[in-house]
Amino acid sequence: MRRILLKVAYDGTSYCGFQFQKNGITVQQVLEETLSEWLKEDIHIMSASRTDAGVHALGNAAAFDTETLIPGEKYAYGLNVSLPPDIRITGSREVPLSFHPRFTETIKTYEYRIWHSAFENPLTRLYSLHLHGRLDVDRMRAAGLYLTGEHDFAAFAAAGYSSKTTVRTIYRLTIDGERDGMITLSVTGNGFLYNMVRIIAGTLIEVGKGEYPPEHVAEILESRSRKEAGPTAPAHGLTLVNIEYPALDSDAGLQKENI
Amino acid sequence: MRRILLKVAYDGTSYCGFQFQKNGITVQQVLEETLSEWLKEDIHIMSASRTDAGVHALGNAAAFDTETLIPGEKYAYGLNVSLPPDIRITGSREVPLSFHPRFTETIKTYEYRIWHSAFENPLTRLYSLHLHGRLDVDRMRAAGLYLTGEHDFAAFAAAGYSSKTTVRTIYRLTIDGERDGMITLSVTGNGFLYNMVRIIAGTLIEVGKGEYPPEHVAEILESRSRKEAGPTAPAHGLTLVNIEYPALDSDAGLQKENI
Repeated sequence: MRRILLKVAYDGTSYCGFQFQKNGITVQQVLEETLSEWLKEDIHIMSASRTDAGVHALGNAAAFDTETLIPGEKYAYGLNVSLPPDIRITGSREVPLSFHPRFTETIKTYEYRIWHSAFENPLTRLYSLHLHGRLDVDRMRAAGLYLTGEHDFAAFAAAGYSSKTTVRTIYRLTIDGERDGMITLSVTGNGFLYNMVRIIAGTLIEVGKGEYPPEHVAEILESRSRKEAGPTAPAHGLTLVNIEYPALDSDAGLQKENI
Repeated sequence: MRRILLKVAYDGTSYCGFQFQKNGITVQQVLEETLSEWLKEDIHIMSASRTDAGVHALGNAAAFDTETLIPGEKYAYGLNVSLPPDIRITGSREVPLSFHPRFTETIKTYEYRIWHSAFENPLTRLYSLHLHGRLDVDRMRAAGLYLTGEHDFAAFAAAGYSSKTTVRTIYRLTIDGERDGMITLSVTGNGFLYNMVRIIAGTLIEVGKGEYPPEHVAEILESRSRKEAGPTAPAHGLTLVNIEYPALDSDAGLQKENI
């Protein structure tokens, strides 16, 4: 038995999220069916992040066990032959059987993209949120500073979400100014509560619009109350960019794409 | 009677190009039907550039005549209410009745985008060409220098194309290096022969792959023979970014989008 780790990219537009569910097709289902048919085994996928319906990924992670003796790095190429074009495996490797992509320490990076212009852009409409009117990026940056570091992010978690602790650490939060009208919020941390990045995006957008001052974000954090924070920004603006596993040898090909 | 000029953006994925044709739905057809239904007039569109099937636009131009008294700049907002999300009007204005978007001096800018990576990117797959393996951007840049300026571009025009002259001027040709794996070829000129930008892209890609040295592009130009140049690069990598009309007041809103 071997355990194989995949780096998975997908356009979430047509999927009901990553994790298997009854009501619609998911990325996990497509991966399991494609792998099972290829390897003639009953493959079960262990995922790192259950992205919501409509959320995209450039670097989600998924693992599975197989009896097949194909070298780990070959799975990416083999799978891409059969997968639909909106799902690509951009890296694969063998990992220890003890490794689980969700229960291993990670550094995750998400991006939330905002197309800030009077008119929607047809070429980016599926991968960014369109906003017009006032949106002050400097104010959003100032607000973001309050979120960096270790905090109790209870106010930034979807109601009803249960987790042992709501304390998380954001290592870096940057907002790339308006390059050609696109504003990119990039957040890197050791873990994220359910909907946390989308609620952070929704809150920083309210700051950018002038609904409240940047300092108010500190009060929102302190309240630990979901209703104090901004709305959950729409799913299609969010992309899971990368998942890093410090415990795995970082030279092993999953983080880097060899051209 | 008034003449209205529109700045038109579209995702070309689902369209058989801009210009009306029998075999499939085109952007022109959607615009004419939407305008005719809205204005209760039989609207005919004059286009600036008949982009091919699958080619995208951020700034194509189209004009039409109407008896309606709606102020020119209001058409963009009104049309976007009824247009499908893959077509957006990003500016509109009234122009003189003598103005025709195709028969007026223009400065056009196209971009050809290449995703250079071992694996396709699902989030950019519809708007860029995926290439892997060797692709030397510096060599492509060196080759591009031979194309800048006024030249007879007969070798870079689709066979069978008839035009009074095959002399065109490229004001600027730049190749933006690999920002996150994306290579962007940007070409600005006073006009382009049929398929010219896609043949330029196909030729520079051959140089980048090492098929022939950058200097050979000068010989291709001189040959005036289509078969000496590289292949026509696929349509989906191409975007018509902007059309500027120097004769029109450049402050008048079509070039700039007010947020």
